[in-house]
Amino acid sequence: MAAENPDWHAIAARHQNSIRSKIPPEWRLPEGLLKSDPPMDLARQSGILDNWELMITECKAGDILGGLRTRQFKAVDVTRAFCKRAAIAQQTTNCVAEILFEEALAQAAALDEYMAIHGRPRGLLHGLPISVKEHIHMRGTRATCALIAWADQVCTKDALIVRVLRAQGAVFHVKTTNPQTLMAVETDSNLFGITFNPHNRRLTCGGSTGGEGALIAMGGSVLGIGTDIGGSIRVPSAFCGVYGFKPSVARLPHGGLSGLHDGMQNIVGVVGPMARCVEDIELFCSAALACRPWDHEPSMIEMPWKTEDQVQILIPSRWRIGVVWHDGVVQPHPPVTRALKVAVTALQARGHTMVDWDTGLHRHLIDAADEAYFLDGGKEYREILAEGQEPPVPILKWLLDTKAGRASTVEETWKLNAKIDRLRTLYAEQWNATQIDAIICPVSASVASVHNESRYWGYTSVWNALDFPAVVVPAGRVEESDTWANFPPASASPLTPIDDSYRRLFPDGQGASRYRNAPVAIQIVGRRLQEERILKIASALERCVSMSPPPVEAPAGTEQPKVTDLLSSRL
Amino acid sequence: MAAENPDWHAIAARHQNSIRSKIPPEWRLPEGLLKSDPPMDLARQSGILDNWELMITECKAGDILGGLRTRQFKAVDVTRAFCKRAAIAQQTTNCVAEILFEEALAQAAALDEYMAIHGRPRGLLHGLPISVKEHIHMRGTRATCALIAWADQVCTKDALIVRVLRAQGAVFHVKTTNPQTLMAVETDSNLFGITFNPHNRRLTCGGSTGGEGALIAMGGSVLGIGTDIGGSIRVPSAFCGVYGFKPSVARLPHGGLSGLHDGMQNIVGVVGPMARCVEDIELFCSAALACRPWDHEPSMIEMPWKTEDQVQILIPSRWRIGVVWHDGVVQPHPPVTRALKVAVTALQARGHTMVDWDTGLHRHLIDAADEAYFLDGGKEYREILAEGQEPPVPILKWLLDTKAGRASTVEETWKLNAKIDRLRTLYAEQWNATQIDAIICPVSASVASVHNESRYWGYTSVWNALDFPAVVVPAGRVEESDTWANFPPASASPLTPIDDSYRRLFPDGQGASRYRNAPVAIQIVGRRLQEERILKIASALERCVSMSPPPVEAPAGTEQPKVTDLLSSRL
Repeated sequence: MAAENPDWHAIAARHQNSIRSKIPPEWRLPEGLLKSDPPMDLARQSGILDNWELMITECKAGDILGGLRTRQFKAVDVTRAFCKRAAIAQQTTNCVAEILFEEALAQAAALDEYMAIHGRPRGLLHGLPISVKEHIHMRGTRATCALIAWADQVCTKDALIVRVLRAQGAVFHVKTTNPQTLMAVETDSNLFGITFNPHNRRLTCGGSTGGEGALIAMGGSVLGIGTDIGGSIRVPSAFCGVYGFKPSVARLPHGGLSGLHDGMQNIVGVVGPMARCVEDIELFCSAALACRPWDHEPSMIEMPWKTEDQVQILIPSRWRIGVVWHDGVVQPHPPVTRALKVAVTALQARGHTMVDWDTGLHRHLIDAADEAYFLDGGKEYREILAEGQEPPVPILKWLLDTKAGRASTVEETWKLNAKIDRLRTLYAEQWNATQIDAIICPVSASVASVHNESRYWGYTSVWNALDFPAVVVPAGRVEESDTWANFPPASASPLTPIDDSYRRLFPDGQGASRYRNAPVAIQIVGRRLQEERILKIASALERCVSMSPPPVEAPAGTEQPKVTDLLSSRL
Repeated sequence: MAAENPDWHAIAARHQNSIRSKIPPEWRLPEGLLKSDPPMDLARQSGILDNWELMITECKAGDILGGLRTRQFKAVDVTRAFCKRAAIAQQTTNCVAEILFEEALAQAAALDEYMAIHGRPRGLLHGLPISVKEHIHMRGTRATCALIAWADQVCTKDALIVRVLRAQGAVFHVKTTNPQTLMAVETDSNLFGITFNPHNRRLTCGGSTGGEGALIAMGGSVLGIGTDIGGSIRVPSAFCGVYGFKPSVARLPHGGLSGLHDGMQNIVGVVGPMARCVEDIELFCSAALACRPWDHEPSMIEMPWKTEDQVQILIPSRWRIGVVWHDGVVQPHPPVTRALKVAVTALQARGHTMVDWDTGLHRHLIDAADEAYFLDGGKEYREILAEGQEPPVPILKWLLDTKAGRASTVEETWKLNAKIDRLRTLYAEQWNATQIDAIICPVSASVASVHNESRYWGYTSVWNALDFPAVVVPAGRVEESDTWANFPPASASPLTPIDDSYRRLFPDGQGASRYRNAPVAIQIVGRRLQEERILKIASALERCVSMSPPPVEAPAGTEQPKVTDLLSSRL
C-alpha cells in the first residue's frame, strides 16, 4: 500500500484545493484581508454578510431555533449566513476540513418545505447549522484524522451523534480541522496545515478540536461537535474563547469515529459540544439523548437527560466549591490565575463557599493518563505515518520522542487500570470528606500557546482520568495587568522542570504582549455522570461572573444583538 | 516466598480443621448421617432444629424481615436457626469456607438491643442472616480464592457490598466455598475440597459461587452474595435449584474482592444475589443501592433502583419474548428442553408472544469471552499455583490445557474489545428489529453435571459478553420422561465436537438416573441496565409457570410454611 502512495505534498495540495474550490467566488476575501490579524472582525469588514446575517450568526442556538420554529426565519437564510461566515473563517484561520455548503442549503430547503407542508418543525434542532469535527463519520465526507494515509477514506455512514442530530433537524454545513493523528492540543497536520487562532494568528487555536474552536469564535458556527480524550474539546474552547463540554464516558453517543487505537479502553474519549453559552450545551445534550440512542450503541448508559425540575431537586442553592489554584505540576500563568480569582470572588459574594482544593492526587492521575495514551509505545502512530510516507508534525514528533516508550504487556495494562481505579476511589473519598458540589480550576496553565509551544494538558487530562464532566466557561482576555508581580505563583521556585519551562513562556513584562488578545477561561468540574448538575452550576457562574467577552468581537459600543431586533430587522 | 511454603496438604488440613472446629458439638451430625444422599432432608432428620427453626429457615427473606420489623421474631433466634442449618449443610456438602456463628449471634444480639432501645429496625435488612462468597472481602475473614498461596490472607476491610448490607442491618453468619482461582463452573480446590450438590452427591453444585448454591438449597441461608463473570452465580443457582441474578456491570457495588487479573477490563465480573424467590433478589438490589454506593465506588453507575411504579411504566403488559432453543454450539439435554417448552407454553397461554430467537451471534460472543478470560495465556493462574506449590484441580488443569494459549499483545486486546463492541452493536440491531422485551433460554446445556464433567458454559457467558442482566428461575427437576426421544435435539447430527460430547453425557434411557433428582432451571435475560424490568418479567414467570420446587424439599404432603403459621407457632 505504501508503495502506491504518491508524494504526501501532492495529496495535501489536492485536499486543500478541493476545500478552496468549494468556496463560491462571491464569498472570497480580497487578498489584502487574508492575513489580517486578528481575523475576528473580518466578517464585518468584508461586507460579505448583510446586517441580518451578521446578527443571526451571533445569536444563541436557542434563539435561532425559536425564530425557525415560529417561521420567522427560513432555514435556508440561516444556513446561508453561517456558510458565508464559515467561508470567511476558513480563509483566515484554515479551520475547515470539508465544505458542505451545497448539501447544507439543500438540507435547509427540504426543512423549510417540511415546515411549509406540516406547519411544525422536524425536530428539536429544526434548521440549525451544526459543524462537525473532521474525524467524526458523516456519509459522503472524509474522516482522515488529518492523516495522509487516510486522505481518501470516504464515510459511508453517519456516526451515531450525526445520525441522532440529523434526525432532530440539524443541518451540517462544514467539517472542521483536527491535527495529525488527533493526539495534540494544537491543530497542525501535513494534510490541512496549521489552523490559526482567530484572536491572534501567532497563537494556536488549540486542539484537537481546533477547527471548531476557531470557527465558532469567528461566528461560522453556533454549535459544533467535538471529541475529547485529554482536553481536545476544552483546550481549543479555552484558547478560542468559546464554551466547551466534556461529558462523562458513555453519556452521549460516541460510535462512528475514525481514529487509531480502536478498542483501547484504558482511557476512553467522548463526544461533546462546543458552543457560545451553557444553554446551547444543554440543548445539544438533550437533543442527543432525545431518542434512546443507547438502544443503538450498547456501551452508552441508559440515562435520559434530566429536566430542569429534576436537576433543581438535586443541587442545593448554596454550593461548596473546591478551588484548584494549581495542580502541583505546572503553575498557571498570571491571566489564568487572575480569571480564577475574579470567579472565586464573585461566587463568594453570592454566598457560595469556596475551599482550597488539595491536588495531591493530580500528578498521579495525569501520569496514568499519559501512560494510557501510549500503551503500544506509539506503534500505531508510527505505522500510520509510515503508511502515508509523511513526517510527524513538530508537536507529534515531540510527543513520540518524549512520551512513547516501549509497548506495555497485557499485565501492565491491567496494573494501570487497577491504579486508575484506586486513584478514582481515593479522589471519591476526598470529595466525600469535603462535601463539595463542584471544582473550579484552570483549563490550561497558559492561555492560547504560541504555535508549537503546547507541552502540558494536565489541567484537562486529569478529568479524563477521573471521568468527570467538565465545562469550559470563557472569562475575559489577557490584560496588561496580568504580570507575575500581580499574580505570583504559589511556589516561587518551580515545582517541576515543566513548571520551570512554562514560567519562561510568560516573560516578565512581555507576557501580555506575547499573548495579546488571547481569551482566558475557567473550568467547572463535577462528579461522574452528574452532567446536568455541573451545567447548572456553570450556567449560574456564567450569569453571576458576567465576564465572558461577546462571543464575536463587536465594534466598540455595539450591543449584543437581541432576537427581537433581529426579527424586526428581517420582517 | 515459595521456599517458605509448607506442603499444601498441611495448609489445607489446617484450614478445613479450623472450619470444622467452629461447629458446636450439639450441631454436629452423627457419623451415620454424614454421607446421606441426597442430603437435602438432613435438617429435618437430624433433630438439630426445632419446628420454628425449620420453618423460619424455609421462609422468604421478605417475610423474615417482616417478623423482625414487627418484633415478632428476635434477630438472635433467626440467626441461630440459620447457623444450625448452615452447620448441617456444611457437614454434608462442604459448602462453607468460614464459620462466623459467634460473630453473627453477637451482631444479632446488638440489633435486638437496638430494636429494644429505638423501637425501629436498623435498616432495610435488620437482622437478616446473609451468606457471603469466600473471595468477597469481609474484615477479619479470609478471602483466598481457594488458593493455597493466599490461605492466610485475612481481610482488614469490608468489600463495598458487605459494608452497604451491614449498614442496612444484615448479619453475616458464613462465607461459602468457591473453586481454585474462581475460574470454574464446579467448586473444587485443594484448600477446601469438593462442594457437593445437596440433591445428589454424585453431581457438582456448580461454580464458582457453588457454596452459596448448596447452602441456600439446604436452607442454611436465605440470601447470599455471589459473583459472576461467565456464569458463576447462575450455574450453581441452576444446579442447586435456587434463584440467582447477574446484573449488568457497574449496577451493584463490586469493589473489594480477592482475585487474579486485577484491572482486567476486557470482560468484567459483577456481584449479585442468590435467593429463594425473585422478590428477595429485588430486596437485595434495592438495599444495595439505598445509600448512594456510587459515591464510594467510582466505576458504579449512579442509577437508583427503580420503584415498582417506575418499572410498571417501562414494561408493557403483553410481552414479546425471544426463545433460545439452542445456541448453535451445544444443544440442551432433554430436561432442559422440556422445562423451556413448559415455560413457553405457559407464557403463550397467558397471551405473551414467543418468537424463536436467532442465535447466530452467540458463538462469536462466547469465543470472545473465552479469549478475554485468558489474555495473559493463563500466566497469573500458573504463577499463583506455583507460589502455593499446589497442582491445579482437574477442571482447572483442563481449562489451562485447552483454553490458555500464548499471551496477547496490547493491540490484540484492543482488537478483542473492538470485536466485542461490534458484536454488541449487531445484537442491539437484532433486538431493535425484533422488538422483544426479554429472552428466555437455558442456563446450561445440562442440569448439574457429574463431578468434573462441566465443559461448557456458553449459555451463561454469552450474557457476560453482552453485559445483559440475567436471572435464573428454578423449573422443576429431572423426570423419567426426559429422554432424547421425547425431547430430540433440533439437529440430529452434532453441531460441534462439544455438542457431540455433551450428547453422550445423557445416554439414552439412563439420563434421568444419571442426573437423578437434579433441579432444572431457565434463564430470563434483558437488555443492559434494565435490571428492574427483567426481574418483573421473571417474577411474573415465576407466578405463572409455578413449577419451581419448594426451595427446600419438604416431606410429601407438607405445604410451604406461611408466616402467619410461624407467628402463631412462636408466640
